[in-house]
Amino acid sequence: MDNSNNFESFTCPIPIGKRNEVSIGHGSGGSLTKSLVDSIFIKYFSNDILDQGNDFADITPVENTNDFRLVLSTDGHVVSPLFFPGGDIGRLAVAGTVNDISMSGGIPKFLTASFIIEEGFPIDQLEKIAESMKKCSEEAGVFIVAGDTKVVEKGKADRIFISTTGVGYVIKDLFINGTKAQPDDSVIISGTIGDHGIAVLAARNELGFSTTIISDVAPLNSLIQTSLKAAPHIHVLRDPTRGGVATTLNEIALQSNVKIVLDEEKLPIHKQVQGACDILGFDPLYVANEGKVLIIVPNNEEDAVLEALQKHPLGKDAAKIGVVESIENYPIVLMQTVIGGTRIVDMLTGEMLPRIC
Amino acid sequence: MDNSNNFESFTCPIPIGKRNEVSIGHGSGGSLTKSLVDSIFIKYFSNDILDQGNDFADITPVENTNDFRLVLSTDGHVVSPLFFPGGDIGRLAVAGTVNDISMSGGIPKFLTASFIIEEGFPIDQLEKIAESMKKCSEEAGVFIVAGDTKVVEKGKADRIFISTTGVGYVIKDLFINGTKAQPDDSVIISGTIGDHGIAVLAARNELGFSTTIISDVAPLNSLIQTSLKAAPHIHVLRDPTRGGVATTLNEIALQSNVKIVLDEEKLPIHKQVQGACDILGFDPLYVANEGKVLIIVPNNEEDAVLEALQKHPLGKDAAKIGVVESIENYPIVLMQTVIGGTRIVDMLTGEMLPRIC
Repeated sequence: MDNSNNFESFTCPIPIGKRNEVSIGHGSGGSLTKSLVDSIFIKYFSNDILDQGNDFADITPVENTNDFRLVLSTDGHVVSPLFFPGGDIGRLAVAGTVNDISMSGGIPKFLTASFIIEEGFPIDQLEKIAESMKKCSEEAGVFIVAGDTKVVEKGKADRIFISTTGVGYVIKDLFINGTKAQPDDSVIISGTIGDHGIAVLAARNELGFSTTIISDVAPLNSLIQTSLKAAPHIHVLRDPTRGGVATTLNEIALQSNVKIVLDEEKLPIHKQVQGACDILGFDPLYVANEGKVLIIVPNNEEDAVLEALQKHPLGKDAAKIGVVESIENYPIVLMQTVIGGTRIVDMLTGEMLPRIC
Repeated sequence: MDNSNNFESFTCPIPIGKRNEVSIGHGSGGSLTKSLVDSIFIKYFSNDILDQGNDFADITPVENTNDFRLVLSTDGHVVSPLFFPGGDIGRLAVAGTVNDISMSGGIPKFLTASFIIEEGFPIDQLEKIAESMKKCSEEAGVFIVAGDTKVVEKGKADRIFISTTGVGYVIKDLFINGTKAQPDDSVIISGTIGDHGIAVLAARNELGFSTTIISDVAPLNSLIQTSLKAAPHIHVLRDPTRGGVATTLNEIALQSNVKIVLDEEKLPIHKQVQGACDILGFDPLYVANEGKVLIIVPNNEEDAVLEALQKHPLGKDAAKIGVVESIENYPIVLMQTVIGGTRIVDMLTGEMLPRIC
């Protein structure tokens, strides 16, 4: 945080504010900022590094850099509504960045969090979000080591936005990235698709009917480390968030210069998600996920990774959904449909569901 | 960025948009996001690491961690207006995080940038901001290695917010932080105070008269490395941003459990800044700076650091402004005034100038 945090001896604590709302003064960098930081962020995030109370966090590597490389990732979070079935913006902010780091095959260690808050935002909601971030950080085994708080006038932001950045370590010789997909590789998804997008839509009351779908938002680092143990030659890991499975596979096809062929019949889709998509005219392949990973792996490790995934609580619905083939004219994603045809699965154009993450 | 960036072979580039404005689709994570990222962010920020095109940046340490520690810092930027005399939100976002890292005595190396953009924001302004970030990154010798773009509906954010996170290296045995101020240390400021706050106010036309004050926003890493060479036993470095010199010195007094006594006569203040403050009833001690550093140093290195600062273009107005003394009852900042009295200099309470950074 921009202010020092370990002021136990300070004899005149200033109350957060009279109205239980975030005020412009809470973003001043002065004593009101300190009271907000202490009473909410330090209360939940406290750890030895954060509590140093400087403008920087000293994260002296715990890993020897002869054995590990360092990876870095950032994400802004603007989801609306802030609270939805299965999660909230706090859980999303922690899990989202933990997952981006995990897609390198690496182990996330440290997070930073930058809060931009609208004047008048209820302190009790801020506390719920901080508590959720703490819980998710514990699940993922990461520490929030630095933060920042800004407050803007009423009407100049939509309640709260959170940007998180993560630092992680990856084993020196492990190079997993979007360029590594090869012909004959298998394409695996760790579970049902589209749950997050439909859960957020339901929370917005945009479905016109009720569902029991909950968001899949979860930190995937443990699932991925389990997969890597079972299948050490994984080529690509990527989480199909905004733009969904279709957009993510198109990115990989382009980066690796390959053709990817999906089998529609094999796509794991929750019945209620499929039902909601049918009514709304959405394709679940484009709906965002926040707790799923696409794994592209040599076919001789396909069984091992599927077995490992299915034993993990976050991977029980894992399935092989396609294969990588040699490029013909240009990188492309195709799908063999249930009625026996083949169609092109394009990248998302425009926007189907804004502010889903 | 959340999308791959090195798609030279992609034969059907999608135009940014018809209206030269950021649209909701630019935040979709799909092809419109890719076109915006490629045509603005990659155009200006391109480097080997960013161009990897993954959800994570591989920043394999360039420094041997037997010799260096790693430091991390984050800041959100919501300044209004976006462009002001001497800088803009882009320069602020890069310099602000470079400076936080530099306050450890470390050398900033890598930045991430998370953009939250209001629908309808002009693309040409976004490009100006990206260009300014590029220029400031080059000045500071840092690379933007990962980013994220979110777009919210018109009226749900105030044009653009930028959160930056920095990673840097600090020499293993160099421990500079807010707890190290000691009695008899000298308190030095690298130049005139309050310039940034008054320049932003002037840009908002809130002064009621015109000034030629420009913001001091600048990356301080070179100035600080120069100071450290001249005075290797510096105890504390901190940039007096939000809350100004008064709040920053109060934080240090609390962290180090000392008394700090300022000499009002010695405070370097630009005449126009003092004039604006007199008219508005502001105390320049509470006005934000974005290109100044407070240095607390053993008095036997005071001359060396002042000489080094004054030779540097960013430190020509550097001055000794006070001393550290032993604590009496509680940590406190006092000021000997020009009229011969002594007054308490408190931490900022409430907010004088919102959205200054």
